[in-house]
Amino acid sequence: NNPVAFITGPCQLEGLDHARMMADKIAAACAPTGTQFIFKASYDKANRSSITTQRGLGMDEGLTILSKIRDEFGCPILTDVHDTAQCAPAGEVVDVIQIPAFLCRQTDLLLAAGETGRAINIKKGQFLAPWDMGNVAEKVASTGNENIMLCDRGTSFGYNTLVSDFRGLPTMAATGYPVVFDATHSVQQPGGQGTTSGGQRQFAPVLARAACAVGVSALFIETHQDPDNAPSDGPNMIPVDQMGDLIGQLRAFDALHKGL
Amino acid sequence: NNPVAFITGPCQLEGLDHARMMADKIAAACAPTGTQFIFKASYDKANRSSITTQRGLGMDEGLTILSKIRDEFGCPILTDVHDTAQCAPAGEVVDVIQIPAFLCRQTDLLLAAGETGRAINIKKGQFLAPWDMGNVAEKVASTGNENIMLCDRGTSFGYNTLVSDFRGLPTMAATGYPVVFDATHSVQQPGGQGTTSGGQRQFAPVLARAACAVGVSALFIETHQDPDNAPSDGPNMIPVDQMGDLIGQLRAFDALHKGL
Amino acid sequence: NNPVAFITGPCQLEGLDHARMMADKIAAACAPTGTQFIFKASYDKANRSSITTQRGLGMDEGLTILSKIRDEFGCPILTDVHDTAQCAPAGEVVDVIQIPAFLCRQTDLLLAAGETGRAINIKKGQFLAPWDMGNVAEKVASTGNENIMLCDRGTSFGYNTLVSDFRGLPTMAATGYPVVFDATHSVQQPGGQGTTSGGQRQFAPVLARAACAVGVSALFIETHQDPDNAPSDGPNMIPVDQMGDLIGQLRAFDALHKGL
Amino acid sequence: NNPVAFITGPCQLEGLDHARMMADKIAAACAPTGTQFIFKASYDKANRSSITTQRGLGMDEGLTILSKIRDEFGCPILTDVHDTAQCAPAGEVVDVIQIPAFLCRQTDLLLAAGETGRAINIKKGQFLAPWDMGNVAEKVASTGNENIMLCDRGTSFGYNTLVSDFRGLPTMAATGYPVVFDATHSVQQPGGQGTTSGGQRQFAPVLARAACAVGVSALFIETHQDPDNAPSDGPNMIPVDQMGDLIGQLRAFDALHKGL
Repeated sequence: NNPVAFITGPCQLEGLDHARMMADKIAAACAPTGTQFIFKASYDKANRSSITTQRGLGMDEGLTILSKIRDEFGCPILTDVHDTAQCAPAGEVVDVIQIPAFLCRQTDLLLAAGETGRAINIKKGQFLAPWDMGNVAEKVASTGNENIMLCDRGTSFGYNTLVSDFRGLPTMAATGYPVVFDATHSVQQPGGQGTTSGGQRQFAPVLARAACAVGVSALFIETHQDPDNAPSDGPNMIPVDQMGDLIGQLRAFDALHKGL
Repeated sequence: NNPVAFITGPCQLEGLDHARMMADKIAAACAPTGTQFIFKASYDKANRSSITTQRGLGMDEGLTILSKIRDEFGCPILTDVHDTAQCAPAGEVVDVIQIPAFLCRQTDLLLAAGETGRAINIKKGQFLAPWDMGNVAEKVASTGNENIMLCDRGTSFGYNTLVSDFRGLPTMAATGYPVVFDATHSVQQPGGQGTTSGGQRQFAPVLARAACAVGVSALFIETHQDPDNAPSDGPNMIPVDQMGDLIGQLRAFDALHKGL
Repeated sequence: NNPVAFITGPCQLEGLDHARMMADKIAAACAPTGTQFIFKASYDKANRSSITTQRGLGMDEGLTILSKIRDEFGCPILTDVHDTAQCAPAGEVVDVIQIPAFLCRQTDLLLAAGETGRAINIKKGQFLAPWDMGNVAEKVASTGNENIMLCDRGTSFGYNTLVSDFRGLPTMAATGYPVVFDATHSVQQPGGQGTTSGGQRQFAPVLARAACAVGVSALFIETHQDPDNAPSDGPNMIPVDQMGDLIGQLRAFDALHKGL
Repeated sequence: NNPVAFITGPCQLEGLDHARMMADKIAAACAPTGTQFIFKASYDKANRSSITTQRGLGMDEGLTILSKIRDEFGCPILTDVHDTAQCAPAGEVVDVIQIPAFLCRQTDLLLAAGETGRAINIKKGQFLAPWDMGNVAEKVASTGNENIMLCDRGTSFGYNTLVSDFRGLPTMAATGYPVVFDATHSVQQPGGQGTTSGGQRQFAPVLARAACAVGVSALFIETHQDPDNAPSDGPNMIPVDQMGDLIGQLRAFDALHKGL
């Protein structure tokens, strides 16, 4: 029954200086409430809407940067993997390996991730019911690694739209694994801008409040110093200078729910 | 910026003694927190899944009972109408006329309801986007009556299932009208039991907490002393002896959101 | 095992001359294939998106026009009702009374319609599963009138969008009642243009072909001489000068399916 | 404007003798109408609902069997890949490489598949709008390989349910690439049986007829001599002894649509 933790950072790595600047601002946003954060950033955007958009720095450079952020800021770090071969090297560096939503049923990827012994954050597929995540977690757990988190990032609702069904959080929590709510991808509009996804940034804090009132172990919120010019997920990221207030507000709802 | 009010009562009227007993228990549940409640009950279930199920006491007896409840308990009363001809007589008795979700686009019903001058609580159709409720409210407002509430009771999500999209509450609030969240119908499973609807009562408090964290003017929660044997909506009603605790909890989330 | 019949005509009545002109063009479009048609038009658009749009000529004038069309063209006529009080007068004039989709669960309307003894075409609610239409039909059948048709006009699929699930046609046919596919409302985009609904006229023939291959008793297709300037449902109506070719094409798929 | 081709075979390879027996029955079912078929079978079920279910023979044995089937029957062969590393070896053997629906946005997999120079059949993700498949195809086409097919296998519709939106076939065809309709996966009920997916086999021929009337280049239909005891996808596969009649029927709808 710990206070809600935050998995947060920019959608994709843009270089060491950028990562440092972001981690610095995030640490400052978390400090007043003593909030624990896990620094998140991707080294590769492996499933973007279109071939014409930026993919990222690549695994080697990405893991090096993430490793430095952990050393300098003393925070756990998280990144996502896209291929079984990436699990072992990523697992040597990061504290949490994340399974992307589209890949949450890929048995080999789940097994390779589980075998690293790291914590595994599994995003629920947009095509999957919350009660089907038990089978997904069991694939990871079959490796002997039960350090698993289940994360909701929205469910397909017609075309180019996701909806957050908050019955899913307690449903997934019934597995016994901690549950995470991803507030910024839940307001994504997949493919909604032709060659990129749109988003409704203004609703991310709304859904994050709802998640805290329902009850979650962690929130996943992507952030950027200038979302409108970010290389990916700009329409749904939260400006980093708003994160301090937002975290404070969400901590209060979390504390009320948990009786902290 | 008032504390959240509760529209609550049994799904359908079962007689004067029953209504009195329910109002008494509801008043007791609201007293510790000084919570305002509007007593809700239907005199006719006009759109049930099957012809074989109970419809209710009818308008004349129903309005007489509701009128007595208001006199005895000093609470405002709400009932739903199903036909333009019912609006005027209902409007002479109740404080709030409710437009059922299936009927929220019926222009004549909205106009007749508006013309009573009473407050009008319009349920959002399960088939309607939240941003389309502005046009619906405008039909009522065209009568000069702007005493309107917009109420979310879930949106069709595949077959026999509803989903609550909490982006809809601020979207509807952007009309300027107060917004209500119906926590017990949102967990209904329409037609889910063959000739009656099913429900997931256990999720009603979960969604109600989420709604308070998002921000609402009122919550709509149906309740019964013995839901499993209620003549309608049993699977989703809250046992009335749990209402005191639930109201207290929800008031706390509401107060946190509103800074009360 | 009869050839597919067509329920067709303009969305709303615009006057006697217009109805005559339309019926004349429809009769001509049906003649080459000896296709039976039921002339459809509404005297009142009772549930439009917005109060600012046209509602129609009203019941008295509308029924008079429809009656004349039947006399002059020898075709059965169909109109929709919106209130129990409209059923008896409509039933004195029309051959088929239609229950709008939003109203398909209103018990009193179904009973009043059934009691006219006329054929009743019930549109499946956008919020209803096809297997739930059995309960709906039973309400009409409880009056002793089993002259019932069940009509699919699409199911809610996210916001402002409908989807046609062709498993629904055989599912509804399992009730034993004839099944109709409404090709023009199935491509409606409810509320999709702000104060009116949008539509995707180009897909109506596509879905109509699919329906004939699946198997239906009748197709429902609204048509107009100038859809872009029609008072309602323009975006989804078929230009009447294309109806001859379309009917011929659809009859061929129907004949292939039925072995005619 | 060729007659509809069939991509058909058992969901997963069960051994050489079984593949031979199935190919033999399929060839016999296709012979009377001179129907072209592509033999489909998977060597690995890489994304099953649960870790407890059978995965298959593996790539080496699987590709060997498929190669023999091609040699013996003279038919093109298709299999699906799950990892970039599988593309090159699969491409040396099969005529068509298939991209699974969950993986349709994985850029590296699409590029590796494209680079084989083989035909690529891309299943539309259950989470993707048909108009978003243009971007997906472009990823493959960026390799210089434009031998691409786009295949609809249903879209998420609430939980554990798919729906086939037949507007998607002409929408995808507007890319200029041939379009395939997967009739047996479209009636899958993902996760619908706890640790395996359910299915509605009875609706596969219904939807396949609809697809032919709408217009497709190929149909994808999985088949088995004893679906109820098949190691995967039993609930939605067609018994192989029904394939002859089904193919004949579907060819007739295809011929009518294409004017053959």
